Amino acid sequence: MNKQLILSKRPVGLPDKDTWTLEENEMPKAGDGEIIVKTHYISLDPAMRGWMNDVKSYIPPVQIGEVMRSGSVGEVIESNNSKFNVGEFVTGWGGVQEYSLSDGQGWVKVDPKIAPLPLYIGTLGMPGMTAYFGLMEVGQPKEGDTVVVSGAAGAVGSIVGQIAKIKGCRVVGIAGGADKCKYLIDELGFDGAIDYKSDDIKVGLKRECPKGVDVYFDNVGGDILNDVLTRLNMRARIVICGAISQYNNTTEVKGPSNYLSLLVTRSRMEGMVVMDYAKDYRKAAMEMGQWLAEGKLKSKEHIEEGIENFHTTFLKLFSGDKKGKLILKV
Amino acid sequence: MNKQLILSKRPVGLPDKDTWTLEENEMPKAGDGEIIVKTHYISLDPAMRGWMNDVKSYIPPVQIGEVMRSGSVGEVIESNNSKFNVGEFVTGWGGVQEYSLSDGQGWVKVDPKIAPLPLYIGTLGMPGMTAYFGLMEVGQPKEGDTVVVSGAAGAVGSIVGQIAKIKGCRVVGIAGGADKCKYLIDELGFDGAIDYKSDDIKVGLKRECPKGVDVYFDNVGGDILNDVLTRLNMRARIVICGAISQYNNTTEVKGPSNYLSLLVTRSRMEGMVVMDYAKDYRKAAMEMGQWLAEGKLKSKEHIEEGIENFHTTFLKLFSGDKKGKLILKV
Repeated sequence: MNKQLILSKRPVGLPDKDTWTLEENEMPKAGDGEIIVKTHYISLDPAMRGWMNDVKSYIPPVQIGEVMRSGSVGEVIESNNSKFNVGEFVTGWGGVQEYSLSDGQGWVKVDPKIAPLPLYIGTLGMPGMTAYFGLMEVGQPKEGDTVVVSGAAGAVGSIVGQIAKIKGCRVVGIAGGADKCKYLIDELGFDGAIDYKSDDIKVGLKRECPKGVDVYFDNVGGDILNDVLTRLNMRARIVICGAISQYNNTTEVKGPSNYLSLLVTRSRMEGMVVMDYAKDYRKAAMEMGQWLAEGKLKSKEHIEEGIENFHTTFLKLFSGDKKGKLILKV
Repeated sequence: MNKQLILSKRPVGLPDKDTWTLEENEMPKAGDGEIIVKTHYISLDPAMRGWMNDVKSYIPPVQIGEVMRSGSVGEVIESNNSKFNVGEFVTGWGGVQEYSLSDGQGWVKVDPKIAPLPLYIGTLGMPGMTAYFGLMEVGQPKEGDTVVVSGAAGAVGSIVGQIAKIKGCRVVGIAGGADKCKYLIDELGFDGAIDYKSDDIKVGLKRECPKGVDVYFDNVGGDILNDVLTRLNMRARIVICGAISQYNNTTEVKGPSNYLSLLVTRSRMEGMVVMDYAKDYRKAAMEMGQWLAEGKLKSKEHIEEGIENFHTTFLKLFSGDKKGKLILKV
């Protein structure tokens, strides 16, 4: 049998446990050209919340009755596709289920001897690629720049900050709680941290960014984005990667009322979606792999177990009760 | 005597008539290296409202007791500066006064035989340069793009739209009232117009921009900016030039709650200040002058008379009771 997590209704606000239904269905059968992948690890990402809304976005929403969409990494256990052999490990859009059937499109082979499997849905997967391309292509940091990142202890933010350090920037992370802030500085080598749960953000920015902000990588939106706008240097770059503070809103998204500082400082605010950079993933992953091997880049995964625990685990994305990449082991 | 308009208090909301005091003061005397310019025309611009607030911006605020800052064009009537001869016409920051004294810094000679004097503070001056560089450098229109401009019947917006037409774009203007909308289409050659006073902006955008929006040149901010955000094409460019709808706010500026469409469409929103392009003004003015001569570009000035009428004339910037460039003849 195949345990599958089915989207059973569209949540309003924070998803409750009835948002999904865990079903046990027949094992899929691989037809001509198809493969079956046994899921080992499921990626949990804030963006998944957006995919549950019935709105036009950069990808279609998950439909009611469909398996919840997610990234995953697993093993090919059946193959009628000449490109894949049984026993190979692959990463792709497996979804929240034990076994996934596909024609192999979008699946990429990975090597567990080079890096542990969870890394392929973390630092060497979507979140890592998001950090790499968002920072380098949109943020365009220069040596000596002050780079601020929110959601700094998360899967994307922690990598953004570390890459910015590698590139010679002063790096300041915004995260929730003293423990995370200590982690950013002591373990990841950030230059400064602002605890949004206890610091006044504006005061924190003044303290940690005495020379202003050149690049702001925004994962959270809301008041934090608005406060950073007041500290921009000339020609600053704001990377709009996400807005986790707004994803469970039941009221209108809070727009940044300080956006006119873009005019005063001739700055730009630009959105990014990682998939646009797919053709360069391989090159970036090799560079990131090298940094990991050299110890310049640290990857942290928070792994929980069992599809049946998807709901409570998913909520940790929004409560912040985790560090690094949130993963569900199947 | 020299009539001078002095900033006498900082306005809250729309400036009332007590915001300025008209004084008659002694004629200035030109010292060593100095010139006196007799003001012919004073430029009235929405940005002047911002300069009256005591906040850090791209230029220092006008101080209480100082002559109100403004662009102007006039004649050199006294000169102890070898760079300027009596009888020459010049444009610069003369301020709202009959005669201005300076060391000549920032004043540029203009030729009334090439173009009427008012044009040097309009289409060939700051507003024209703002339109040219904002559109071309920040908006980066490509042939076939749909370009939307707000404040479209104003000094900047009307030029933005016409340049975009010259560059082969579909051009849609947003303006207040049927008369202005007719003017945009019949006289300036815009492809479409949206009347924000009677149209629903979203409906209007759908009607006039069936292929979406590639460039939005924003002079107004507020709800119009927010609505345009819902119609962006992939990799669209929003030029933040001003936010006239917000300048007289007594409450917080309205931030664009739809800003996350920047993410979905990988678009950017970028601020601009015309002074950054000063070194290229001359080249742009020559190109614009050529377009004017060829009849490809039309310039409209709304000229009122008398420094004593500054207050009522200034308010027309915000009521919209004018077309083209607002100017005060002295």
